[in-house]
Amino acid sequence: MASSFRQRKAKGSQAERELVKMFWSINWACIRSAGSGSQHYPSPDILVGNGSRRLAIEVKITSAGKKYFSAEEIRGLNYFSTKFGAEPWVAIKFQGKEWVFLTLEDLEETGKSKAVSKELASRRGLSFEDLTES
Amino acid sequence: MASSFRQRKAKGSQAERELVKMFWSINWACIRSAGSGSQHYPSPDILVGNGSRRLAIEVKITSAGKKYFSAEEIRGLNYFSTKFGAEPWVAIKFQGKEWVFLTLEDLEETGKSKAVSKELASRRGLSFEDLTES
Repeated sequence: MASSFRQRKAKGSQAERELVKMFWSINWACIRSAGSGSQHYPSPDILVGNGSRRLAIEVKITSAGKKYFSAEEIRGLNYFSTKFGAEPWVAIKFQGKEWVFLTLEDLEETGKSKAVSKELASRRGLSFEDLTES
Repeated sequence: MASSFRQRKAKGSQAERELVKMFWSINWACIRSAGSGSQHYPSPDILVGNGSRRLAIEVKITSAGKKYFSAEEIRGLNYFSTKFGAEPWVAIKFQGKEWVFLTLEDLEETGKSKAVSKELASRRGLSFEDLTES
């Protein structure tokens, strides 16, 4: 049965909190965005910094074999990152797998949106350790 | 009559959104933090960047003549800013006045906490224009 919007949102928040915890565990400061609310300014799901690098990250978790990113999400992430001064990244966790991190260039073009399959994630994705090593 | 926690929280969020809008209006990227939730990692109310500067800002709005910051708030703001790589700032708006911005050094020591009076704000505070001019 398809999960409700509320359930998906709760799972999304939980996934973001998991990443926040991972970044703090290696001493990188990290915050979750409150979301756009009634105003529609672009904002990444989480924003991370370690004094020299800043990462703006869109976070996805899925039980499917492929996850899509809307053109709007990608455009917003790019725009925010350019203005703020951060590297745009996508974090994705497939069920039963570890987190992987991809740049926007690594995503698969699928017409109007972009996508990451399990196969693409394991081929091009960086692990948390790879992403954060100096 | 004292306002409820819910009312104060709503006013706080509204104040943060007002600042987010002001920063975006001059092309500085800005996000509101989702707050600590169940995990207690320090996070500023808003985080702003323009490609070269990053500001971590604790936001207050008040109808009183003086506003207090707990030692916990100041410590958290300082800690986050150091780890992330951002300048720690306090933004305060007294009723009927414009926003003013102060560094942590500008705050008045009041035993365990810190404070800003209207008088201190107008004497030491920077206007939005002063804060953001290059």
